[in-house]
Amino acid sequence: MTSYVSHTTVDSVDAYTMSRWWQTVLDYAEDPDDPGHEECMIYSRDRRHRLLFIEVPDAKQIKNRIHLDLRPAEGTRDAELSRLTGLGATVVADRRNPDGTGWVVLADPEGNEFCILRSEDEVAAHRP
Amino acid sequence: MTSYVSHTTVDSVDAYTMSRWWQTVLDYAEDPDDPGHEECMIYSRDRRHRLLFIEVPDAKQIKNRIHLDLRPAEGTRDAELSRLTGLGATVVADRRNPDGTGWVVLADPEGNEFCILRSEDEVAAHRP
Repeated sequence: MTSYVSHTTVDSVDAYTMSRWWQTVLDYAEDPDDPGHEECMIYSRDRRHRLLFIEVPDAKQIKNRIHLDLRPAEGTRDAELSRLTGLGATVVADRRNPDGTGWVVLADPEGNEFCILRSEDEVAAHRP
Repeated sequence: MTSYVSHTTVDSVDAYTMSRWWQTVLDYAEDPDDPGHEECMIYSRDRRHRLLFIEVPDAKQIKNRIHLDLRPAEGTRDAELSRLTGLGATVVADRRNPDGTGWVVLADPEGNEFCILRSEDEVAAHRP
């Protein structure tokens, strides 16, 4: 026996706004069966990864122990960083190194930390 | 431009032990390139979902705002619940209903909440 990950759930003050924000970040689709806006499921175009935003009464307090790590689907980490901050993400910690490696820790509009890593092309270009 | 989710990262007091525990829960493989045990990546057999356990100095304090929702790959929710508690998961909240719907909130060995939902077959069997 085993289990598989059906989806990842994110506690939210405003589930609908959060789901829309992450839809734009990840180019995800919205679940057409979603009956309301207190629980909002979005999923990748191949339907293999899903995020569910559910409303809770409490706002975020301390650093999350679980976070998402993103890579640019095309382009570079730094171009994607500009896009994400343009969407309203805030920079929590800049872990980029002078040699081009590293990542940036961001926070979404409700303060959930996530990281933007280098693209696979950037990682490959840096290998010796 | 867009980003995709490379992996989900879980802060851990003991990353290696946690990665081994979740490997058993999800039947994931361990990354053979993993150089040590302070950062442990595990991934699904089709390599499409990956979990990274990284060591942090602080233990879990409050309820996580992000959690994984699992379904049994075969068998039933209740059989899988028995397997998971047998592995050391603890029951946080039993949300099962008398009509067979619902789920159970569990915690992994470091206290991270996750849910076990009904299998897809169980959900389908309950549809009118």
